[in-house]
Amino acid sequence: MSESSFVLTAELQQAVSSFFQRIPFNQVLGIELGELSSEQVTMHLPMKPELIGNFVHGILHGGVISSLLDVCGGAMALIGAFANHQNLPSSERLMRLSKLGTIDLRIDYLRPGRGQRFTATALPLRSGNKVAVVRMELHSDDGTLVAVGTGTYLCG
Amino acid sequence: MSESSFVLTAELQQAVSSFFQRIPFNQVLGIELGELSSEQVTMHLPMKPELIGNFVHGILHGGVISSLLDVCGGAMALIGAFANHQNLPSSERLMRLSKLGTIDLRIDYLRPGRGQRFTATALPLRSGNKVAVVRMELHSDDGTLVAVGTGTYLCG
Amino acid sequence: MSESSFVLTAELQQAVSSFFQRIPFNQVLGIELGELSSEQVTMHLPMKPELIGNFVHGILHGGVISSLLDVCGGAMALIGAFANHQNLPSSERLMRLSKLGTIDLRIDYLRPGRGQRFTATALPLRSGNKVAVVRMELHSDDGTLVAVGTGTYLCG
Amino acid sequence: MSESSFVLTAELQQAVSSFFQRIPFNQVLGIELGELSSEQVTMHLPMKPELIGNFVHGILHGGVISSLLDVCGGAMALIGAFANHQNLPSSERLMRLSKLGTIDLRIDYLRPGRGQRFTATALPLRSGNKVAVVRMELHSDDGTLVAVGTGTYLCG
Repeated sequence: MSESSFVLTAELQQAVSSFFQRIPFNQVLGIELGELSSEQVTMHLPMKPELIGNFVHGILHGGVISSLLDVCGGAMALIGAFANHQNLPSSERLMRLSKLGTIDLRIDYLRPGRGQRFTATALPLRSGNKVAVVRMELHSDDGTLVAVGTGTYLCG
Repeated sequence: MSESSFVLTAELQQAVSSFFQRIPFNQVLGIELGELSSEQVTMHLPMKPELIGNFVHGILHGGVISSLLDVCGGAMALIGAFANHQNLPSSERLMRLSKLGTIDLRIDYLRPGRGQRFTATALPLRSGNKVAVVRMELHSDDGTLVAVGTGTYLCG
Repeated sequence: MSESSFVLTAELQQAVSSFFQRIPFNQVLGIELGELSSEQVTMHLPMKPELIGNFVHGILHGGVISSLLDVCGGAMALIGAFANHQNLPSSERLMRLSKLGTIDLRIDYLRPGRGQRFTATALPLRSGNKVAVVRMELHSDDGTLVAVGTGTYLCG
Repeated sequence: MSESSFVLTAELQQAVSSFFQRIPFNQVLGIELGELSSEQVTMHLPMKPELIGNFVHGILHGGVISSLLDVCGGAMALIGAFANHQNLPSSERLMRLSKLGTIDLRIDYLRPGRGQRFTATALPLRSGNKVAVVRMELHSDDGTLVAVGTGTYLCG
């Protein structure tokens, strides 16, 4: 994958950023965007009572974890697709934003999601023209690896 | 799996039902419980604007789908564990409710989640003493198969 | 999926059949082709000592199971791609045979693989132009469901 | 996971080693054991004509990849279980060898398996008393990442 030298322009970064922030369910969750580059995407999630799954132990709902990792992986897939299409005009690359879709997702829940703020990280495993495979991780604020995942995305 | 003859008592059914309804994030999503039996669990989800993922097309967020299928599969795993422990007193079986956990989850997103009301169905594939494997499906109200999933659960 | 009316011509059926039989590792396993249609693919595997994984209990190696389910799902994906490209000449459709590839695979091992002959079944979940999602099952000769799987394939 | 300080005794190492080498299908594949420690397991696979999947391009069969990654992950799960049971006598720990089982496996095929010798690596993600989650990678001899996988194992 030679796209490591691809630099996301401020325009594309802004487009990806406003795209993800406009998604209603991302707002419900309270996802905050972090790094958006062709090598890595990070997103943050502050804990709040509505996100609790196990009310006995006050830990994050598994669905919140899978949602966040899916969103983070999707952003990575999209940026990878941009890198593969540097010859296309910006407008066409932006159009791909609305065509992005998750094909499948696997999440492994390793440890309870305890903490005040969680960080999701996505790394590209394969960036094809049509299909991207992305690896994701979720850490709590004390550095515990809470969950890992792998997503396959259709990216244009 | 000979537990097919297991009948969930009204008491256990009520316990499972109030357990899942008390989960904060299930309330955020608006999950409604349907059938709760040892052969099948169904849950329903009415569409609402907060659950949208693709705002261009107005379709369900992938994270909502994975959340709902995870919850539905978890309930099935739990009821399967009850069936395997018919000799235990009710109180001990209820204690297992708070220990239920998803080990891993795979979701395949097959078609866009369009519609006013979605139905998740879970069927047991394997109900062990410790680990259950459950298959899930999500249909929209016009009968379209939107997504399928498989979950592995630790159930006590 | 309106391709259910697609009928695999004898020529294509023969092509798929000889393609799969020429694959060296399929011969090592001893895979026998069964039904090849646009609705279902079945394959059979006679037990032999080389395929044993657990020598204490004499059961099928997990890798044999994942191999067989992957092959069976791949054939289904390929036939689905043929159905989507009925307008293409046979020669072009045949060319796709060599481009078929598994993107990802999930296998759930439900029960020990005991028996003299196993049957794998593949059913299409989604047949797109580029990506197919297929569901697979493995039964032993007494009807036991030994394993299930889901595969995502790039099909041309 | 505090078991990182666990040192696999020569006796256990020998037991694991002879266990895996006695498995008939591992011999068919030609799997060679590499490092066996509580932090990592590596295995090697020399290419040979029987292992070919795509005869047009001469690349490794997907089933060979999933088999090797499953075996490598299983060895890692087993060693993790040993580490969790240091208080048990060796004989009991050895008994667990025959109870090891894969619950589920996900493989992502990233790039064609080309090369003369492949190396599988397994790293523990979670080592519980009953269930272990392991991450696996397959590299070809030129360092290409060919496939990744995640396995969930029942380990006693």
